[in-house]
Parts: sequence; C-alpha cells; structure tokens
Amino acid sequence: MTGRATAAVQGADAPDLARLLDRAERRLEEVARGHGEVLSRHAWPTLAAGGKRTRPLLVFLCGGLADADELVAGAVAVELLHMATLVHDDVLDRAPLRRGRPTVFVEGGRALATATGDLLFSRAFAELAATGSAAAVRALSAASSALAQGELMQRADAWSSAVTEQRYLERCTLKTARLFEAACRLGAVLGASGGSEGALGRYGERVGLAFQLLDDVLDVAGPPERTGKGRGTDLLDGTVTLPLILARRLDPEVAERDLSSLATAADAEALCDRIAASGALEVARERALAHVAAAKEELGGAGLAPQLVRTLELVADGVVERYS
Amino acid sequence: MTGRATAAVQGADAPDLARLLDRAERRLEEVARGHGEVLSRHAWPTLAAGGKRTRPLLVFLCGGLADADELVAGAVAVELLHMATLVHDDVLDRAPLRRGRPTVFVEGGRALATATGDLLFSRAFAELAATGSAAAVRALSAASSALAQGELMQRADAWSSAVTEQRYLERCTLKTARLFEAACRLGAVLGASGGSEGALGRYGERVGLAFQLLDDVLDVAGPPERTGKGRGTDLLDGTVTLPLILARRLDPEVAERDLSSLATAADAEALCDRIAASGALEVARERALAHVAAAKEELGGAGLAPQLVRTLELVADGVVERYS
Repeated sequence: MTGRATAAVQGADAPDLARLLDRAERRLEEVARGHGEVLSRHAWPTLAAGGKRTRPLLVFLCGGLADADELVAGAVAVELLHMATLVHDDVLDRAPLRRGRPTVFVEGGRALATATGDLLFSRAFAELAATGSAAAVRALSAASSALAQGELMQRADAWSSAVTEQRYLERCTLKTARLFEAACRLGAVLGASGGSEGALGRYGERVGLAFQLLDDVLDVAGPPERTGKGRGTDLLDGTVTLPLILARRLDPEVAERDLSSLATAADAEALCDRIAASGALEVARERALAHVAAAKEELGGAGLAPQLVRTLELVADGVVERYS
Repeated sequence: MTGRATAAVQGADAPDLARLLDRAERRLEEVARGHGEVLSRHAWPTLAAGGKRTRPLLVFLCGGLADADELVAGAVAVELLHMATLVHDDVLDRAPLRRGRPTVFVEGGRALATATGDLLFSRAFAELAATGSAAAVRALSAASSALAQGELMQRADAWSSAVTEQRYLERCTLKTARLFEAACRLGAVLGASGGSEGALGRYGERVGLAFQLLDDVLDVAGPPERTGKGRGTDLLDGTVTLPLILARRLDPEVAERDLSSLATAADAEALCDRIAASGALEVARERALAHVAAAKEELGGAGLAPQLVRTLELVADGVVERYS
C-alpha cells in the first residue's frame, strides 16, 4: 500500500489503525516465538521481514477499527496463513530469497520448512479458535482450501499453451483473491463496523484479483529494482499469466513461442519485451482497473460509515499505485 | 484395532458405531471428491485405502455414539488432519508406498503432494467450522500445532545419540498422542456422552503414547509381513526410538553404534537383532502397558456410562494387541 492509500490512512483513522497494526505485530511475534526454538529462529525473521500487512489492514478496516482482541486475532490469523503459504511455496520453488532475506527452505531445508509452514498454518486456526466465532473459522478455512486448490491448478497448468483467460482468472481467485475476501469477511464478523459480510467479501475478492493481475504485469514490466527479481521470472518457471495470454492473441509470433523453450533469464526478458510491445500490458492493466472499480462499487452496499468507505476506496486505489 | 476391541465393539454398541463409521466414510469421500479433480484422483484413494480409523472410533465412543452431524464432522476432521500429515510425511521421506499403494508423492510429485496435504488440512478445519464449536476448533488446532512441532523435533534429533527417553516421549506426545487426545476431546465437546473433556483428553493422550511406543517396538521386532516394511526402517532413517535408547543403556556395544553408520537394510536388521537381544523390547513394552493402564484409570473420572467405559478400556487394550 503506497501513495494515496497511505495518505488516507494517515488521516482521521490513523491513530486507531496504527495501534491495531502494532497490536497485530506484537501478537505475531508472540506466536512465532512461543512455539519452540525452531519456529522462533526460522519463522519469526520471516514474519518480521514481513511485507506490507495488506491483509491485516483489510481486516481492521472492514472491522471498523474496533479495539477488540477478536479483530486482532483475525488480522493475525490471516497473516499467519499468508506466511504459511509463502513458506510452502518457497519449498516448492526452491527459492533462496524472500523479501531480501534467506528463505526458511534455504536455511533449514525442505523438511524443516514444510513443518514450519504447517505450524504457521495451525496457529492461524488456533488464533481464530480463541475468538469463538465459527463464521471466522469458516471464512479462513474456505480461503485456505482455495489456496491449496490454486496451487494445484498452477502446477497442473505449468508450461501449458492452452490456459485461457478464464482459467487464469479462476486460478487468481483461488490463489490470491479468496484470502483477500477472507480478510474482509473476518473484519465483518469479528469487528464492529456493522458492514455486510457478503459485500465486504466481494470487495476483497475484487481487490485481490486486481492485486494479482498487476503483480503479473509487474513480472513482465519490471523494473527489477522495483520488484526485487528479474523480469519474466514467472514465465521462466512455466507460469502462464495474463500478459502472455493476451499477447498470444495480439501477436502471432508470441502465440508460437513455447514457454519450455525459455532457457535463460535473457530469453525470458526477450519474451517480456515482445509481450510489452504487443500492447498486452495495457489491456491487462485495464482489466485490473475494472476490478478496482467493481470493488469500490461493492462498498456502496456494504453499510459502512462514510469515512471507512473512503479509506477502503483508497486501499483499492493503492493496489493500482503499486504499479504506476 | 483388532481382537478384543473389535469384539467389544461388536457387542451392544456395534450397530450404532458401524452406522457412524459408515457416515464418516461417506463424508470423507464427499470431501475428497468435492474439491477438484486433482484432490479426487490423489486424495481419495489415499483416504479410502485408509487404515483402521482408530481416531474416528475414539471420537464416536467419547461422544457417546450420538447420532449427530457434529460428531461425524469431528471424526472426519481428525481423520483428514491425520491424512494430511501422512501425505506431507511421505513427501519429506520420499516414500514410494503407503498402505500398499503408491503415495501421492510418488504419483504426483512433491508440489502436488504438498498442496494435497494443505488441502486436506484446510478441509479438516472447514468440517469443524460447520459445527460452530470453538472448543472443537481449539482442540484440533492444538493437535495440529503439536504435530508440526513434533515433526520439527524429529528432524532436529535425527541421527543424534543424545536423545533421552524424556525427549523421545515429548516427541511421541507431540507427533502422536496430541491427535489421539484431540479425537477424545472432539468426542466430548461435540457428542452427547456427558464425559469430561479433560479426563477423556488424558485418556486419549495415554492411548496415543502406548500406540506410538508399540509402533516403535514393531519397527525393531517385525515381522515384516505384519508391518509391511523391513525391520529397522526408522533406524535407517536416523529416527532414534525407545528400543534403541533403552538398548544403549543395556548393551555397551549398542551404545557405541552410530546410526549414521547404517548403510543397508541388512545393517539395520543386524542392529535390530542386537537391540532385541538386549531385552530393550520387553522394557519398552512394559512402558507402553503402563500408559494403557494409566489411560484406563482416567476413565474412572470421566463420567461416562459403564458400557462406554468398558468399550474404551477394550480400545486401549486393542492397542497392545496389535503388538502381541
């Protein structure tokens, strides 16, 4: 979250939000340090290195910034599940670095990283159990099933030239949007915003889709100093993303390229250039903007206070600003 | 569960129990088939090949054989979590076979098996979420955290000659007994037995410990046609179990052996013979019997109907009969 969204949150809501995010941070540290030496050594640095806490932010805003333990538990749970997924993904991708530091996988090996992911996963549900809310457990377990199904779909579709835009969107929904949806649902059921769980869930899903689409645009567009990795990393891994799907339609030569023919980072960058030249990135960006607009529309029927609506609109815009 | 326990369950309770186990079986199939083609192809055969359903049995008995959806959900959840762990363990152990059929790992690869495990894991919590019981989610998440911690401990202690009996018991508690405990707790909170969650949980923990100790005795004692794998498989993997710990005390030559010096199945079998000759297996078996006795004692304070107490006593005895 950058630019306007940060600015918005630095407005009237800022002290409440900062206090809640700080509480979530401290609870994440307690969880990571309170379950054995191994978890403490490997999981806490990963959690602390931590990223933007976008999902906890959504929990807090959709929960009306209520100063409640339950809402903090929801924010912590969604972040723990997110981290669990990243730790497992790093094992599967044999990734050496995440957020500029060595992954649990590279430091501790496959077995340790798999178990660490499982433990983070379990603690996510343990946090929610403490709230006593079955609706919250339902929201998180739906998201976590979707994440695993999305991962399965991604592996099944790797290197395939038959992946359609619809199939790609289904995968993004499973792998990314369902957890954003869960964050918003958790806010609605654990907080005190009075917001509709359904409408906020749909808002979160659309924001998540926009987030993933733009992430996939960034993989092609770079620049590497922004993304922290080379251009075309996903393509080199065989992951078929929207820019490639669109470029295949727009440029017959791209349509003939087979991802499995990419051997080097230079090959991947050359394909990125070709995709960019096709105009596919602009089309993908328009698709993402449409999801942002649809997300904002959902807020109209969510039954939230106007100030919360404005802030959530700016969070949705903030997803786009990552890109520009 | 064999022998006396089966006989007991074939008594007055048998029709109720058989009906409940059948409902759990059908629900397991629904879950495995209802979440995408990949899960259906790989998870369902694994679940169906399925083992003894000892944990669901404990859920049903501790729940007083109530004919309730909640109790079935608890039984299904505990079995799904158990299966998730086995699928992940097979990835880490690169195991080709489980229960006589190819593992998800060997059929689908590392990535697919990891995601399949994650999905089974998620569905376990989703089942419980549907019951609306926070106590149930708490019991399962505690067990699932323990499982991951036990896995971490096992990896940390592999090949170590410094593992004490106490440390070994701690690992067995985390890796096995906590899930047996959770099964009994789930029965208590989701069923209608009126049994004390605490006492039944302690009963389950003791039964789980006895189960694990005797499993580790079987690894050394064989015979392979009973266990489905060669003698000393755990030792060959570097897993330090109670028979080895005790034999090191009883036989100075065993104390000097280093597990990492075992190169072949024949080496492992020779060490098994040496451990057996030391008398360690009898001592380990006594330890297990003491846990069975302690488990039965807990039933005295559990507040269950006499018929349920008798059946649970026989389930505890059944654990020992696997061995003899």
